[in-house]
Amino acid sequence: MNIIINGQVNSSIAASDRGLAYGDGLFETIACVDGHLQFFSQHMQRLNEGCQRLSLPLIPQQQWLHDIRQLNIEQPAAVIKLMLTRGSGGRGYKIPQDAKLTRIVSVHSWPHYAPTLRQEGARLIVCRTPVSINPALAGLKHLNRLDNVLARAEWEDGDILEGLMLDTQGHVIEGTMSNLFAIEDQCLYTPSLAQAGVAGVIRQQLIALSAKLGYDCKIVPLSVKHLNNMDELFICNSLLGVCPVRQLEDKHFKQWPITSILQQQLNMNEASLAV
Amino acid sequence: MNIIINGQVNSSIAASDRGLAYGDGLFETIACVDGHLQFFSQHMQRLNEGCQRLSLPLIPQQQWLHDIRQLNIEQPAAVIKLMLTRGSGGRGYKIPQDAKLTRIVSVHSWPHYAPTLRQEGARLIVCRTPVSINPALAGLKHLNRLDNVLARAEWEDGDILEGLMLDTQGHVIEGTMSNLFAIEDQCLYTPSLAQAGVAGVIRQQLIALSAKLGYDCKIVPLSVKHLNNMDELFICNSLLGVCPVRQLEDKHFKQWPITSILQQQLNMNEASLAV
Repeated sequence: MNIIINGQVNSSIAASDRGLAYGDGLFETIACVDGHLQFFSQHMQRLNEGCQRLSLPLIPQQQWLHDIRQLNIEQPAAVIKLMLTRGSGGRGYKIPQDAKLTRIVSVHSWPHYAPTLRQEGARLIVCRTPVSINPALAGLKHLNRLDNVLARAEWEDGDILEGLMLDTQGHVIEGTMSNLFAIEDQCLYTPSLAQAGVAGVIRQQLIALSAKLGYDCKIVPLSVKHLNNMDELFICNSLLGVCPVRQLEDKHFKQWPITSILQQQLNMNEASLAV
Repeated sequence: MNIIINGQVNSSIAASDRGLAYGDGLFETIACVDGHLQFFSQHMQRLNEGCQRLSLPLIPQQQWLHDIRQLNIEQPAAVIKLMLTRGSGGRGYKIPQDAKLTRIVSVHSWPHYAPTLRQEGARLIVCRTPVSINPALAGLKHLNRLDNVLARAEWEDGDILEGLMLDTQGHVIEGTMSNLFAIEDQCLYTPSLAQAGVAGVIRQQLIALSAKLGYDCKIVPLSVKHLNNMDELFICNSLLGVCPVRQLEDKHFKQWPITSILQQQLNMNEASLAV
């Protein structure tokens, strides 16, 4: 891993950073494949929307690109993580007037996914740890992710790729690191993220893509029982793209005709940008 | 401010720390008055309970004291902040097997409270930003505090000390930096923290103290309307102790007979420890 902080090669941040103290910031996880940042402009757009909601100043895209270009990206497929915090500040929640943002850009190895994952599908469990509910934070990819950490700690079995997180009413919201779609009778369903969850860049692309392909996509409350009665399930994120679900707890899914169409039609290089 | 990190004078942490990436950690805010750490053993107990809930290894009290004793505590009243994170780790929510905890101890100035605050009371508002709901995290003083940051950003007026945070059902849970009590007909009421909020050390002391003094203390759902009909309100935390509320939005409170008894009877040096 190498790291660029505020435009400089560095590996440490001030212990007084509000990103550490309060999770006062945002992040993005971007796939970099063959020297191209996939969906870069969409990631920038989500980051900017997050900045607006948290009253953080916007960082120009060129600034991020300048930082990313200082990384040593050696692998053909790498993960670029951007982090933006409100910077250093004294003790206390009040935002200091003179806070200077902290920009962190780092490169990481591609996760070790099974080579057959996209064809044969992933195994999922349902986590006991609920997702945090807060409409003021819902949708944002912010740094308050302790619920995801606790949910991810619920399994060790390497055969399980992902765990679904529910709200306290039993509605499925998302996976620890992915969004969820379900398909029944040619219609897509995905949970509302108005109260909780991260509005993934790929999720947004897929909502648009499904319309383009002529499928309805409904944003509805979904329980685990609903999911068990669906024809197909899939999860998505910036690294997995579209990934079918072959098993959710004891329920098996064996065919994913529409999932496969979406997987093939999602152009991961759309709006990609050469590093 | 000076800072001791893992026992060494330092001012920076690894940019890969999970405290920054995910808020994967806990903190404590301890008053240090005339060289004594107030309610030190109670803070240690809460921190240890937090460690157990987050599956973090416990740090011995002697280790924290050793760190604190390396700080330059020059003021007669200072704020000691302890922070504990799961340490550095790769990208992804999964807890690395080899993660080494990060211990951060720092000293900060006492806040600029009005000298008459404890006698004349504080002015409060009701925040629009809701508190995050998650029973798996409720009660913990963890590092996911973006809701508190957004709530605290709702006012600039220096006459307002605190803002109350509600859950999405309209139940008052706490202040951005304090717990809340209400008093009616000699009975104390304080919100349940089973779904959201921080279980403050002083709150816990006051629940015990009220029983000792012969007052009932009921943990109940409270709305702003309930609060407006109460005889007395007060907030509490480790720095303020017991602080009466003189105004909540447009509602004024003029007498705090029981609040004053609790304020006087709370021995802030109970279980204090000499630095």
